[in-house]
Amino acid sequence: MNQKLYFTPGPSELYPTVPQHMHTALEQKIGSISHRSQQFKDIYARAVTGLRQLLQLPDNYEVLFLSSATEVWERAIQNTVQQRSFHLVNGSFSKRFREVAIELGRDALKYEVPFGQGFDVDSIQVPADTELLALIQNETSSGACMPVADINLFREKAPGTLLFVDAVSSLPHPALDYTKIDAAYFSVQKCFGLPAGLGVWLVNDRCVSKADIILSSGCSIGSYHQLPAMVQKSRENQTAETPNVLGIYLLAQVLEDMNQKGIEAIRKETDEKAALVYTYLDRNRTFSAAVVNPQHRSPTTIVANTTVPASEVNKQLAAFDLTVGSGYGNYKENQIRIANFPAHSPEQMQQLVNKLDELFG
Amino acid sequence: MNQKLYFTPGPSELYPTVPQHMHTALEQKIGSISHRSQQFKDIYARAVTGLRQLLQLPDNYEVLFLSSATEVWERAIQNTVQQRSFHLVNGSFSKRFREVAIELGRDALKYEVPFGQGFDVDSIQVPADTELLALIQNETSSGACMPVADINLFREKAPGTLLFVDAVSSLPHPALDYTKIDAAYFSVQKCFGLPAGLGVWLVNDRCVSKADIILSSGCSIGSYHQLPAMVQKSRENQTAETPNVLGIYLLAQVLEDMNQKGIEAIRKETDEKAALVYTYLDRNRTFSAAVVNPQHRSPTTIVANTTVPASEVNKQLAAFDLTVGSGYGNYKENQIRIANFPAHSPEQMQQLVNKLDELFG
Repeated sequence: MNQKLYFTPGPSELYPTVPQHMHTALEQKIGSISHRSQQFKDIYARAVTGLRQLLQLPDNYEVLFLSSATEVWERAIQNTVQQRSFHLVNGSFSKRFREVAIELGRDALKYEVPFGQGFDVDSIQVPADTELLALIQNETSSGACMPVADINLFREKAPGTLLFVDAVSSLPHPALDYTKIDAAYFSVQKCFGLPAGLGVWLVNDRCVSKADIILSSGCSIGSYHQLPAMVQKSRENQTAETPNVLGIYLLAQVLEDMNQKGIEAIRKETDEKAALVYTYLDRNRTFSAAVVNPQHRSPTTIVANTTVPASEVNKQLAAFDLTVGSGYGNYKENQIRIANFPAHSPEQMQQLVNKLDELFG
Repeated sequence: MNQKLYFTPGPSELYPTVPQHMHTALEQKIGSISHRSQQFKDIYARAVTGLRQLLQLPDNYEVLFLSSATEVWERAIQNTVQQRSFHLVNGSFSKRFREVAIELGRDALKYEVPFGQGFDVDSIQVPADTELLALIQNETSSGACMPVADINLFREKAPGTLLFVDAVSSLPHPALDYTKIDAAYFSVQKCFGLPAGLGVWLVNDRCVSKADIILSSGCSIGSYHQLPAMVQKSRENQTAETPNVLGIYLLAQVLEDMNQKGIEAIRKETDEKAALVYTYLDRNRTFSAAVVNPQHRSPTTIVANTTVPASEVNKQLAAFDLTVGSGYGNYKENQIRIANFPAHSPEQMQQLVNKLDELFG
């Protein structure tokens, strides 16, 4: 029996109801049902409806299930960019999205600030002919986030550009204004507290139209995950391939639980837990918030500089069945990352902070 | 509690040990571990080692985990074909692989025989400059299969061509000679009795070299699933994206169970159950084997013409908690498909045959 509490930034703690849902899935033999059956279509529809409700998604958006957020990057470029994308880069994942565009042969420009910094939106000019602008709402590697109010400024700056929002490790927390963007995406192993194996792509009609235009111009937009075909399948509560049926089932179940709790309660609890952690980071001897500007500090992936190596922090926490994330990449040892997801209860977060305080001052 | 026995051609019955492995996964919190942790690397390594042992895979092969066999089609074309692929087509899935190549802008030639027929290999000429030849060892839609001895004839016919074998719904049953082909692939929800969400690609060094050549010529071979990069990651027991960790864990566990049983015992049992079903199909009043030539009849996905509509067959079987697959596509009502996977015990298969006999003569 593993009693460890995972504050790692995803995979992380499972949402508390997941074990029970998994037992029910086994009893109902969800792993054996056909992905072409009405039973699966009903599960798919429940997952989509649950997300629409939780995120208050407008009707011109579609919900698509892919295998990972990494796949979403590739499909986004394939389906909506012929020549030029433009990427705000301030960490490893925003950087990687741009690399995907380059690997697919696109002219992928960037506006870069140092790792762990947010953006001063006023100073950003979106280059002419930018087809896709990659906004990084929550940079999982560095813990820098972009306030929703800042995201909302880009529509006017670049009305003809498709605005893609990386909210991989933050949704459903940010109250995005979906009328001011064109797509957002997340992974279920972050804030939805599920086993990894699904990336979710929220995508509006402007993106689908762009894919149609590229396709009719005779260019390839991929094969089984062409955006217009995915949308068509999705409206039938279907996928082209045999999908991660169990993952979609668990997502549908957890969404019902989250909707029962209510999005406002989830956001409030997340903010309170974040305040607890950041307050501790401000007053202790070992750690300090890595993102300097409080406006740019992520509520869901909290990154701290540490004077004790991250491996040593986790070694000491392990004795108490607690674990946090190490820093990302070059920051592996001199930063820690603390996930603050809906699966982490206020009591668990208090327990972590108390123990960090006790061990490291 | 769902007591139904699924003889559908995948998703299908889970391997009998899967519920226990799922309970262990929950106890060990496999859904929460980092995909960059040593714990995950060990799971990954066990899955690869287990497959190498079960399939007796040569050292020049790599084992790659993708999200579906559908994804394997796309990655195969992207990574190994610049101009021309050639597809043996005798059903819906072999046809779909070719369409993927066309959607990716390749010159995808075909050699087609009617749905449900096998191939006379002597009459097939592989066109000059064919980079990839798509062989369909087991056509899940029609139940036609290609004997391994026939597959082995192609290396001499087309020594410069990469030979790809679709064994989606048959492996580990066919004793493929991996030295006479270059790649094979399968889905875990078929003969491995697992929840859907993983496609497995067995790929040799010739395929990787081809991807290297295409990449160095300046052409794109995709982004996060470029073959050479996937191989490099796999050798570190890692994946580029956050993968379906739980799926890989369950695969590793089931492979240990299968290796304990032994590949020869699994193949023998599969053959005996297939003989039971085909013998019944030959002597009853309602059903007849859809594949005329006994040499081309799949042991794992058994397709029968039916004079009673497939929906009616399943309606009557449902009263006894049994279900078979309906026909594929246009054959939905006038064929049934019976999965004969390792998860289906001889007793269960006997039970199905007895009930079909009782209900339909």
